[in-house]
Amino acid sequence: MKPLRIGLAGLGTVGVGVIKLLRAHAAELTARGGRSIEVVAVSARSRTRDRGVSLDGLRWYDDPVALAQDAEIDVAVELIGGSEGSARAMVEAALARGIPVVTANKALVALHGGALTALASKHNTTLFYEAAVAGGIPAIKLVREALAADRLESVGGILNGTCNYILTEMRATGRDFADVLAEAQAKGYAEAEPSTDVDGWDAAHKLAILAGIAFRPIRFDSLSVHGIRDVTSADLRFATELGYRIKLLGLARQQEGKPLEAWVRPCMVPVSVPVASVEGVFNAVTTFGPFSGPMTISGRGAGEGPTASAVVADLVDVARGASLPVWGVADVPDVIDCAPLDDVESAFYVRLDVADRSGTMAGLTSVLRDHDVSVHLVSQHEAAPGRAHVALVTHRVTERAVQEAVAGLSALPTVNGAPLVLKIEDSLQ
Amino acid sequence: MKPLRIGLAGLGTVGVGVIKLLRAHAAELTARGGRSIEVVAVSARSRTRDRGVSLDGLRWYDDPVALAQDAEIDVAVELIGGSEGSARAMVEAALARGIPVVTANKALVALHGGALTALASKHNTTLFYEAAVAGGIPAIKLVREALAADRLESVGGILNGTCNYILTEMRATGRDFADVLAEAQAKGYAEAEPSTDVDGWDAAHKLAILAGIAFRPIRFDSLSVHGIRDVTSADLRFATELGYRIKLLGLARQQEGKPLEAWVRPCMVPVSVPVASVEGVFNAVTTFGPFSGPMTISGRGAGEGPTASAVVADLVDVARGASLPVWGVADVPDVIDCAPLDDVESAFYVRLDVADRSGTMAGLTSVLRDHDVSVHLVSQHEAAPGRAHVALVTHRVTERAVQEAVAGLSALPTVNGAPLVLKIEDSLQ
Repeated sequence: MKPLRIGLAGLGTVGVGVIKLLRAHAAELTARGGRSIEVVAVSARSRTRDRGVSLDGLRWYDDPVALAQDAEIDVAVELIGGSEGSARAMVEAALARGIPVVTANKALVALHGGALTALASKHNTTLFYEAAVAGGIPAIKLVREALAADRLESVGGILNGTCNYILTEMRATGRDFADVLAEAQAKGYAEAEPSTDVDGWDAAHKLAILAGIAFRPIRFDSLSVHGIRDVTSADLRFATELGYRIKLLGLARQQEGKPLEAWVRPCMVPVSVPVASVEGVFNAVTTFGPFSGPMTISGRGAGEGPTASAVVADLVDVARGASLPVWGVADVPDVIDCAPLDDVESAFYVRLDVADRSGTMAGLTSVLRDHDVSVHLVSQHEAAPGRAHVALVTHRVTERAVQEAVAGLSALPTVNGAPLVLKIEDSLQ
Repeated sequence: MKPLRIGLAGLGTVGVGVIKLLRAHAAELTARGGRSIEVVAVSARSRTRDRGVSLDGLRWYDDPVALAQDAEIDVAVELIGGSEGSARAMVEAALARGIPVVTANKALVALHGGALTALASKHNTTLFYEAAVAGGIPAIKLVREALAADRLESVGGILNGTCNYILTEMRATGRDFADVLAEAQAKGYAEAEPSTDVDGWDAAHKLAILAGIAFRPIRFDSLSVHGIRDVTSADLRFATELGYRIKLLGLARQQEGKPLEAWVRPCMVPVSVPVASVEGVFNAVTTFGPFSGPMTISGRGAGEGPTASAVVADLVDVARGASLPVWGVADVPDVIDCAPLDDVESAFYVRLDVADRSGTMAGLTSVLRDHDVSVHLVSQHEAAPGRAHVALVTHRVTERAVQEAVAGLSALPTVNGAPLVLKIEDSLQ
């Protein structure tokens, strides 16, 4: 059979990893895909930079759109990144001429997945994006294929390795966020501009994709997104004491007769659930369906090797002739907004920095009573002379009730700074 | 598009589950598969038994081979079970006429996978068997598709829910094997004839299939298989004390330049690795590859819902036109034998029942020294007046060395009964 000829745009870590993997495993890949898989053309910013792999014999394009239009390629691989610009232009050009595209670009798929699906469908081709969500973990294959028989009730998990690394280190060492972030930056686990990771946007892109396949496409701006900047070492100590781990979770949930709920936020999860023991830079995706039950997959969510492995697995699918509906269904429904969280019920953890004097606790509890928020657990630790950290765990209340109660608590003269509210996510199995 | 017409043989728990699932999720399945998926013909032993689902309007066959030959079916689903007899005859009949087969039959695939692959290939069709390994967990899709780009070094895990349930209960309650087995039988978690589960054969069938895809087909009889009957509550206590969990693992491993090693046996695994926290009836599959790194997926490994979910996911693949090589590669290599374990090095746990008197320990240690087995940890607990349980943890030695040393220990007058040897599997991540 003829080789599958690849045009690859973007020669960063992952792009180079793809070339290395295709060469290292050439014999296996030919046996598995039924034909050889060969990069024949590439595009990147610098033609001369030494990347540690030879580009001899490959056609070079300065412009990725021109690469996508090369008549002698069968698949376009987009590893440029970014939801607009040349990445988007290249993917659109390839789909418009009817060749399949493999991408690792979560922002592009999260923001334009619907439009790209329509374009692929119009030109009778398809878009593969396994590497866009959770690196080497086959989250897309899990939801779109392995769980295609079930009507999932929830999908999500630990979708950002940088945040998970920071939270794991904060717990292990007792150090604070800024300190651990600086170390993560030095080690290359966090970007110099960390907002995409630590403010939850990267996880939100991945969640939007998973929710789009499991339920229906959601408008990205309707997602509720909070990162981990406000989590302190005191919170991690309280979590351990109370039998929880703090994890940045991205979760989408659709229960019978209820609206689609989706959010990214730091949560308290019981130590006994599978995602609680996923530590460091590892990611995990957890699902629940009435037939399949609970399922969790964990592994490396980023990096050259795992991401290249996912890109090339997509290429093997292409070589085998796979023709999958991009969002899992042939006729993609319109994008909808996620439901506001105000009426969603949950238990919550509230941590306050208070003046450690008589009457403080009475003041807190009377505010909670006034807002009908009942508390089933209180813990207090000295924070500094005359100041204490107080942790409250509520019974199930609405998000609105807890936020209003916390606004009331903030207004008390005995409360310093902004309290932290974490959802207690105890429904995962 | 025309419906995908199913002929389904075997109306036990899983068969009924498949019919229920196809009816409950008909709309989603049509959207996802691109066509409706409908059971049109069935075969089972009793036509009159009430199974809780209506069989009205479905063609009935007493003979599953006749069902497979029904010209008005597009796919045959085999849920009869057993590696021979009507299950095998039916699968062969369907493949021979060129229609795809979906099966949940691990024994059939483990023992005849190679021959069935050749038959499918000859008639230009394919065999799907996701439900044969680990129920709802997509172990086959993981290894054959998601990790198709990598050259795995190991694959395996907790492949039998009955054993995992028994070991979990023994640890939680301190009760002995026979007692917990009887309870599991009463609860329906274990069969009246438990040998297939507790002696490791069920796990071995699943491991043979995983190893066949990840590496190359292995002769089933060359697998080393040990079950959990000899594990006692004393061993579970020692495990906890030493920072391990006891799990029945099935693992296949192929490292650069070494022979293919595969076995099913109870192992000590460090509490920190993902499979250690997989409890009760849950299964887990864990892989390691140089590019993909470590990955673990856990969920329900058996039961009506999860197994039906896996069968129907295969049917969605068929509806979508998937055409996958049965064993992951087009030209399946010949079946090979697994390497004997004699020369494989590992740390081991050895538990002995000894007379609790002076000189006993000196006798043990001199036997170990004579066999060049060095020990880095010893623990002793009183078992009964005058008797003690001694646990030894060795440094890395060959399987041969530890077995010879244990034969020497057994011969000591101070040692009662047969010592138990468990592999310490500390290479999983």
